[in-house]
Amino acid sequence: MIVVKIGGSEGLNYDLIADDLAALVKAEQPLILIHGGSSLTNKVSEQLGHPPEFVTSVSGYTSRRTDKRTMEIFQMVYCGQMNKSIVERLQMRGVNAVGLSGMDGRLWEGTRKAAIKVVQNGRRRVLRDDYTGKVEKVNLTLLTGLLDMGYLPVLTPPAISYEGEAINVDGDRAAAATAAAFNAEALIILSNVPGLLEKFPDESSLIRHIPAKKIDQFMSVAQDRMKKKVMGAQEALAQGIGRIVFADGRVENPISRALEGEGTVIGG
Amino acid sequence: MIVVKIGGSEGLNYDLIADDLAALVKAEQPLILIHGGSSLTNKVSEQLGHPPEFVTSVSGYTSRRTDKRTMEIFQMVYCGQMNKSIVERLQMRGVNAVGLSGMDGRLWEGTRKAAIKVVQNGRRRVLRDDYTGKVEKVNLTLLTGLLDMGYLPVLTPPAISYEGEAINVDGDRAAAATAAAFNAEALIILSNVPGLLEKFPDESSLIRHIPAKKIDQFMSVAQDRMKKKVMGAQEALAQGIGRIVFADGRVENPISRALEGEGTVIGG
Repeated sequence: MIVVKIGGSEGLNYDLIADDLAALVKAEQPLILIHGGSSLTNKVSEQLGHPPEFVTSVSGYTSRRTDKRTMEIFQMVYCGQMNKSIVERLQMRGVNAVGLSGMDGRLWEGTRKAAIKVVQNGRRRVLRDDYTGKVEKVNLTLLTGLLDMGYLPVLTPPAISYEGEAINVDGDRAAAATAAAFNAEALIILSNVPGLLEKFPDESSLIRHIPAKKIDQFMSVAQDRMKKKVMGAQEALAQGIGRIVFADGRVENPISRALEGEGTVIGG
Repeated sequence: MIVVKIGGSEGLNYDLIADDLAALVKAEQPLILIHGGSSLTNKVSEQLGHPPEFVTSVSGYTSRRTDKRTMEIFQMVYCGQMNKSIVERLQMRGVNAVGLSGMDGRLWEGTRKAAIKVVQNGRRRVLRDDYTGKVEKVNLTLLTGLLDMGYLPVLTPPAISYEGEAINVDGDRAAAATAAAFNAEALIILSNVPGLLEKFPDESSLIRHIPAKKIDQFMSVAQDRMKKKVMGAQEALAQGIGRIVFADGRVENPISRALEGEGTVIGG
């Protein structure tokens, strides 16, 4: 099993990604796809008059402020436009894709954070009406059932709380949890850069390999959204995934190239 | 099997519908749910600066003009906000719902109309960039697989063309096709009126029963969106569904009441 996460930043080429996925499916490579949608969510939030807000946790991680209205817009973009446009691209290429959110069939379950401590505009705040959490359980039975029936699962946040509420979860970390649940050979994380960059945004400073033991040292190199990708990689390694590749989602055959070692290879 | 269609007009009470569904699931009643989203799609289309347009076919049926951008908004609303809000309501009531569009796993397949002849502002036009069609095939294998695993399928347009494109299909007629594929005992169609009204919008003029043989006579009574519901009922009857009920989606226990004969009972 290979788990592929397609980032939600601008610049990724979804047609080239779909071409490569179709070729891999044709070669009978077992796959699960996970995607994001953050850039389009920002845009649609602005258009709908509910501009995006970002909060920084006291430990220094940035995340989307997800009140009830943000969750509606989030679902529109992630589960609606993004998910179905990927499903359509795959179906047009003969891949029988099934798009699901982490809520459906409780695919991704976790605890909703009752209160999150954040720093916003330099001030500490406690948010109690935020719908965020972390994937703790993956519904292997449903995913295996779909795979056995010959479908390609295309998964997207949100996940679901134990109480049944939609919760915003980080897509990279959800991908790591999914890869771990399947004991996947590899987790490929496609974004709009060639991998982890020593001197962001200088693409020539690509870090080609990070041994598993040294991953902790690279947290400080990661900028912004890359931080959570590195965190997801740490979690995936800790859960036994042998190889994680941060790779370029703008190029031809992005997944095949990542499997051949292009990008930043972590572990293996 | 009972197939329940929840309309997408304003005024339906989704919480009461979910309460009733949860009770029916608890009583082990096999169910499939289908929903619409037209009213919210109109609103979001306005907000996103792509106002809804409606066209009338030369045979007199009104439908949504669905160009590529409309389809994106349609997917955002139907597959995103509407579908996931229903899945969430069910999950919060202990029902393990799985939300899918007709595109996923080619659940609802049909021919995309290459050209549609319409009357718009009194003028005849031929539209070639419209993404509409009709459900011709229902993927029973996937739905049965999900039901056997204990999930409640929550289905929504769009459907998918044989070429893999998203196509807008009428939800009531898709529900009829789904009920027919399952040889369902009943098809319940919930909307924001008590049923088919002799003198629309006078709710006291409810037609309580239409014998199967007489359905054709009632096409002329149906107004606007009700026309397609009657057409769906005709199709369902023709395909062997014994009983179709047009019922009120604003009240307590709307499905149970429909099963007990409230609303407009067609056939059976």
